[in-house]
Amino acid sequence: MFKKILIANRGEIALRIIRTCREMGIKTVAVYSTADRESLHVKFADEAVCIGPPPSRQSYLNIPAIISAAEVTGADAIHPGYGFLSENAEFSRICAEYGIKFIGATAEQINSMGDKATAKATMKTSGVPVIPGSEGLIDTVEEAKALAKEIKYPVIIKATAGGGGRGMRIIRHEDEFEKLWDDAKTESAAAFGNDGLYMEKYVEEPRHIEIQIVGDQFGTVCHLSERDCSIQRRHQKLCEETPSPALTPELRERMGIAAIKGAAAIKYEGAGTIEFLVDKNGDFYFMEMNTRIQVEHPITEEVTDFDLIKEQIKVAAGIAISGQNYFPKLYALECRINAEDPSNGFRPSPGKITNLHLPGGHGVRIDSHVYSGYTIPPNYDSMIAKVIVSGQSREEVLLRMKRALQEFVIEGVKTTIPFHIKLMDDERFKSGQFTTAFMEGFDLTNL
Amino acid sequence: MFKKILIANRGEIALRIIRTCREMGIKTVAVYSTADRESLHVKFADEAVCIGPPPSRQSYLNIPAIISAAEVTGADAIHPGYGFLSENAEFSRICAEYGIKFIGATAEQINSMGDKATAKATMKTSGVPVIPGSEGLIDTVEEAKALAKEIKYPVIIKATAGGGGRGMRIIRHEDEFEKLWDDAKTESAAAFGNDGLYMEKYVEEPRHIEIQIVGDQFGTVCHLSERDCSIQRRHQKLCEETPSPALTPELRERMGIAAIKGAAAIKYEGAGTIEFLVDKNGDFYFMEMNTRIQVEHPITEEVTDFDLIKEQIKVAAGIAISGQNYFPKLYALECRINAEDPSNGFRPSPGKITNLHLPGGHGVRIDSHVYSGYTIPPNYDSMIAKVIVSGQSREEVLLRMKRALQEFVIEGVKTTIPFHIKLMDDERFKSGQFTTAFMEGFDLTNL
Repeated sequence: MFKKILIANRGEIALRIIRTCREMGIKTVAVYSTADRESLHVKFADEAVCIGPPPSRQSYLNIPAIISAAEVTGADAIHPGYGFLSENAEFSRICAEYGIKFIGATAEQINSMGDKATAKATMKTSGVPVIPGSEGLIDTVEEAKALAKEIKYPVIIKATAGGGGRGMRIIRHEDEFEKLWDDAKTESAAAFGNDGLYMEKYVEEPRHIEIQIVGDQFGTVCHLSERDCSIQRRHQKLCEETPSPALTPELRERMGIAAIKGAAAIKYEGAGTIEFLVDKNGDFYFMEMNTRIQVEHPITEEVTDFDLIKEQIKVAAGIAISGQNYFPKLYALECRINAEDPSNGFRPSPGKITNLHLPGGHGVRIDSHVYSGYTIPPNYDSMIAKVIVSGQSREEVLLRMKRALQEFVIEGVKTTIPFHIKLMDDERFKSGQFTTAFMEGFDLTNL
Repeated sequence: MFKKILIANRGEIALRIIRTCREMGIKTVAVYSTADRESLHVKFADEAVCIGPPPSRQSYLNIPAIISAAEVTGADAIHPGYGFLSENAEFSRICAEYGIKFIGATAEQINSMGDKATAKATMKTSGVPVIPGSEGLIDTVEEAKALAKEIKYPVIIKATAGGGGRGMRIIRHEDEFEKLWDDAKTESAAAFGNDGLYMEKYVEEPRHIEIQIVGDQFGTVCHLSERDCSIQRRHQKLCEETPSPALTPELRERMGIAAIKGAAAIKYEGAGTIEFLVDKNGDFYFMEMNTRIQVEHPITEEVTDFDLIKEQIKVAAGIAISGQNYFPKLYALECRINAEDPSNGFRPSPGKITNLHLPGGHGVRIDSHVYSGYTIPPNYDSMIAKVIVSGQSREEVLLRMKRALQEFVIEGVKTTIPFHIKLMDDERFKSGQFTTAFMEGFDLTNL
């Protein structure tokens, strides 16, 4: 087992990793930017090394500084957390060169999943459903119609040079095909000076559902069921839950098997996530693979009783996993508490926390690096805490979360707590019937 | 279901009950003494009524003031928590008279278990093992020797007027009987002017193990396995765990059945605890029944995922329980954090908390009513927080507890945290091989 792990990250995830290392008797090295001197991850680590000023490219993304810190402190492994260097193939490769174990994927695994086209092709080959569509551009409307028939309506045509919805059309019936095709071509040419179009099946009313997998060095891969991350704003997850209200046991089993196939195809080692879009018919399609720990991993921990950071470290140290898949019986929900003003376009609200009281009690877990008197720097992402609750039913969990959020006292900065409280009372959220478009219809006034 | 519950208690258990009421959509009324104006249970309840000054007989034990508060606020039920009026038969009876549901045992149930002799007789009749011994005083040494032979050595003889160990002798063999009997008689006569002696089987190297039971209004009783409370100082529990390292599955099952028999014998309704002494041979003996929630109930919650306060409220409202017994697969441990100086005879250390940071993360639960800036009044018991951790093995739980305790920052008062940290490192504690005498040999220096 490792003797000393350097944590190449900040904030709650750095603290999260320190906690597990302590429980495993492994020494820790924190690295920090000059803006993070007062952070708890610096206070709670056994050693701490300043690696530069903000912005991140001068500190948390500064590979030579981090490798130096590991060498100077004698760390035998590096945990990258999420974000920053966690999916940086170059960093993984350099760690390997320096004989420091990177607690995450190999450079090859990261590369194979980092490029979307390669990832999609790899998944397709290994039998994981991907969104069907054209291989590149389509030349003629006849070709396009033939493909639409094959992959079934609705389909979406997109401008190869496009963005912002321009040159994009959803086609639901063959009889409207030619008109919409021509519209898209004209619009693309006008907008981008390029009328090239490609086609995909249109995933209707999708939910964003990801499967947690763990693989070891001996080729064993298991899954720990799903997390539903459909509550998003501009592709930023706000709130995640498990199990998904949208999955049947049969669908969960099929998605779990697909995720294992996908991970096994690249001989994946460590904890990872296969993200799928699930449509209203229960068909699911590979979106991407995250070759790292996810922000929302604690909800899986609360329903499986596994410590996923411990699993990452064990696997990296060459310990075999049991290979058993987990179908939890409990429910868990996470709300990301950001220092942002939800009434004002979620505008960041950094500054000093003048008073703080965190919720507690049965079924409530808090992962946070802030404390009373802490100043949230303006340089980094605005998440300041994760409130995670678990319970025996979805209804119990929603009520418990509301109770916990109402107990949460934080003064000096604006937070997303009022948004989450309103979310817990939202009838559509409570019904479990929602898609990734949920936030579009959410009223952010009167929080 | 109840619409509004008055909580006739203070501190962490009052807050604990408010949390569950909130999650059940039940309004709450806090009552408080003038010393507790700034307590969180006052801040978090929907309504709060001051019921008088300390000491407790003028406030938390003041039945007319509490009944008035319930009447004025229209509360339809009272939860008494633990301590104070929770096992007061008179209070239970008065609540019933006023048409306010007492969330606890009936006056009859409280009385039947409140008197030790009656409780012991009831348990014996219903087939629960009790400590064998003489029925009252023993007249002659021959009679005593015959009884000792019957209940098997070792036995203990005690002065009927005794206390503090005087007039008490442990007898292990028949050949030393007469000498020790005479010694005890002489000592008793000298010390108390009364040489009356009685005898009990001596329970060797006992552990204090209690079974959590829940009964409903329809006569169904189930158990939720045990809590080991052997780590005590002057009969005050310091640290509790489940499962007990001393129980085999077979013994757990037998103790569970015995506890259910005992509770069923008095048609027990609500949550209750049957406390047993378990000797080194795995024989167990009824000690007493607590007809209320226990301080240490959260460890059972963490391994069963039941909310015991919710179960109490549901049962009081006439909802039937499933009747299923629970044999948890997880491990949990609670440390009671008291504002006491463990290096100085556990002397109370009330005062203002000038800085507070509570531990968090995976497997850590905090139940506490204190906050940064709160002044701990000198009038009440000194417990200020319960740290509860859960995990997949006893080893994991001990390491997690140590990690959590090390994160716990509290300034301005002395606490028992340093004692608990040392306890987590103690080889005998780690081995699981200890008895209720554990603390006698514990070195309280160098904390």
